[in-house]
Amino acid sequence: MLGECIENVRKTVPLVHNITNYVTVNDVANVLLACGGSPIMSDEPDDVEDITSICGGLNINIGTLNKSSIEGMYRAGKKANELDHVVLLDPVGAGASALRTNTAVGLMDAVKFTVIRGNISEIKTLALGSGTTKGVDADVADAVTEDNLEQSVRFVKEFAARTGAVAAITGAIDLVSDSDKCYVIRNGRPEMGRITGTGCQLSGMMTAFAVANRENILEACAAAVCAMGLAGEIGWSRMAEGDGNSTYRNRIIDAIYNMDGAQLDKGAKYEVR
Amino acid sequence: MLGECIENVRKTVPLVHNITNYVTVNDVANVLLACGGSPIMSDEPDDVEDITSICGGLNINIGTLNKSSIEGMYRAGKKANELDHVVLLDPVGAGASALRTNTAVGLMDAVKFTVIRGNISEIKTLALGSGTTKGVDADVADAVTEDNLEQSVRFVKEFAARTGAVAAITGAIDLVSDSDKCYVIRNGRPEMGRITGTGCQLSGMMTAFAVANRENILEACAAAVCAMGLAGEIGWSRMAEGDGNSTYRNRIIDAIYNMDGAQLDKGAKYEVR
Amino acid sequence: MLGECIENVRKTVPLVHNITNYVTVNDVANVLLACGGSPIMSDEPDDVEDITSICGGLNINIGTLNKSSIEGMYRAGKKANELDHVVLLDPVGAGASALRTNTAVGLMDAVKFTVIRGNISEIKTLALGSGTTKGVDADVADAVTEDNLEQSVRFVKEFAARTGAVAAITGAIDLVSDSDKCYVIRNGRPEMGRITGTGCQLSGMMTAFAVANRENILEACAAAVCAMGLAGEIGWSRMAEGDGNSTYRNRIIDAIYNMDGAQLDKGAKYEVR
Repeated sequence: MLGECIENVRKTVPLVHNITNYVTVNDVANVLLACGGSPIMSDEPDDVEDITSICGGLNINIGTLNKSSIEGMYRAGKKANELDHVVLLDPVGAGASALRTNTAVGLMDAVKFTVIRGNISEIKTLALGSGTTKGVDADVADAVTEDNLEQSVRFVKEFAARTGAVAAITGAIDLVSDSDKCYVIRNGRPEMGRITGTGCQLSGMMTAFAVANRENILEACAAAVCAMGLAGEIGWSRMAEGDGNSTYRNRIIDAIYNMDGAQLDKGAKYEVR
Repeated sequence: MLGECIENVRKTVPLVHNITNYVTVNDVANVLLACGGSPIMSDEPDDVEDITSICGGLNINIGTLNKSSIEGMYRAGKKANELDHVVLLDPVGAGASALRTNTAVGLMDAVKFTVIRGNISEIKTLALGSGTTKGVDADVADAVTEDNLEQSVRFVKEFAARTGAVAAITGAIDLVSDSDKCYVIRNGRPEMGRITGTGCQLSGMMTAFAVANRENILEACAAAVCAMGLAGEIGWSRMAEGDGNSTYRNRIIDAIYNMDGAQLDKGAKYEVR
Repeated sequence: MLGECIENVRKTVPLVHNITNYVTVNDVANVLLACGGSPIMSDEPDDVEDITSICGGLNINIGTLNKSSIEGMYRAGKKANELDHVVLLDPVGAGASALRTNTAVGLMDAVKFTVIRGNISEIKTLALGSGTTKGVDADVADAVTEDNLEQSVRFVKEFAARTGAVAAITGAIDLVSDSDKCYVIRNGRPEMGRITGTGCQLSGMMTAFAVANRENILEACAAAVCAMGLAGEIGWSRMAEGDGNSTYRNRIIDAIYNMDGAQLDKGAKYEVR
């Protein structure tokens, strides 16, 4: 059951090393604390190997990459692989610039990722490889919908098979898959898109969930996605007149803070294909 | 009417590239989402040209500048000029250090800005040019007040004429001017100064408003200034006993999220000189 | 009385230069504004000397250090010493990586610190010096408790004597000491550890309190520690059902915003040993 996955985070307090963007980093740290994990941030190349060594997992998010932090991502990723840690890639903006696409693709060549999470556009870019920007895969539409669901499930399974990672494509419908099974998740609210960083927060949480459920990474990632979406629903239900996206941000993190396994099991909306 | 300007943001969802400081960047992103725009952040010199190319506007804020991001500002600004995008300069701390003054003045030489927004001290520094720090312009006082208003209006008009930009000087009384007209705006509350980043947020919003109202930049900028001040008034009216500046920050962004054109038209307090 | 120390901050509005991590920097800025100070952030080596020169105090926090900001820390620290400004060191993660340990120890050699604040593990690392990571001082336990209090007080007094700084070790019980006296402080709540950055915020506040109470640094630092802990208690008392760590963060900063000297004097829980 998915609820056990969040309980395992609370029991084991996984330490997560984050190399992430400076836009949403505070929320990533607070959501990691909310779900029961413990965050450390470091991107300096000469610091990351020591820091990742004392952690259980590494969350690489290329949202505000620079030459120095890119080197940090490579060095941390390789060290985490040596130590057999969980490593997650969040390829923010892959497809939007050559540097982002090439960095994400280059990292996938150099580092074995446990989990890759992005939106459909980013994951399609990674599936096509470097040299393409804003390319459109003829076989996959620009958003996962009920109409193209079967095709999208096949795409994410193939991407997971090819990369050897658990792959997560998040949007109105979320897909979380290894090469064999795919969780199709329908939690969440559209208003979450009006807050910066719910995707970055989810990547941080998925890393913690994966570390705390090492024998069961696929289910752990699905649990994190359901937890985030459910928190969006709970947070929205607590909104008062006059509240907006800034208060909504706080309420979502608060909902994670108060979520237990039973609530997650009851609120998770998914099927497995 | 100013209300139409915010409605145009909501209708067109302008994508804004921000090179901004890491202190207030999260609030800038959330206020851009609140007003109906869409934010992207990137400061790496090798990334900024691609990113700015897919946007409609560029917001350059020198608040925590470093050698790398300064190069990013120049490259992004020139590319945005090539593409005829809206480009805004927020010269945070110009006059407080030689590097900040010289960077702001150097950017003004290299990049044609659509809008320049700062406090009176920063704009006076730019008017005097590089080589001066903490200089005092004999003709302009240290704050815009009812007493020196006529003189201040003349100063901002001259500054706008000389730079070719819409110029905004914000403070207790806000001035927004091209060389011909000047909006004198009296929205806002003094408690906004006890929150970090309301100026940075305003610069982000002004960029989005200008992109969405390209034929009417002066009015768009005045609308953004009124919207921010009005949000400060609405946010303050929702404060409960025990609330302070952190809650106030959330309430201001929430007020932008809920503001429509009719509310802005009704609440805007301005005259045109 | 400690209450006078916060009143002095509000009266004199000390300008504090912060070289701090990008994770919690926004909260540091807002808590400085909340307590009555004024924050400036700058880490670029070519900018920091000018910026620190216009301030009254310098807060150096190594939380997300990089090669450039490390150089900025040295240059700002030396300039602040030249100008006889208050300088505080927050050695985030000393002991967790060689770079962090060596940077903190190197800064202590090059810069005369007025105040050093960290958790027990960080301060123990500094006491042992560079070359050690995760070392354990046989004489000091891993947390300050009622059982090892006498020993811990002796340790912090010795550390203060050796460094010439006011030393603060924060945790469930907080110790603030010069070589002679030690404030033992029992304000705060354990839930503060579930928010990122309460330590960073405290370092910012301590710098402001020290600048505003230059003749009485020890008491000023103790007042800041009591104020932060008391804000944690007040903030918690205002939590509603469903609230979590994100709302708690706001309530703590709000409580600082509303705190006056009388409230601090009444709520501070300390003894002097």
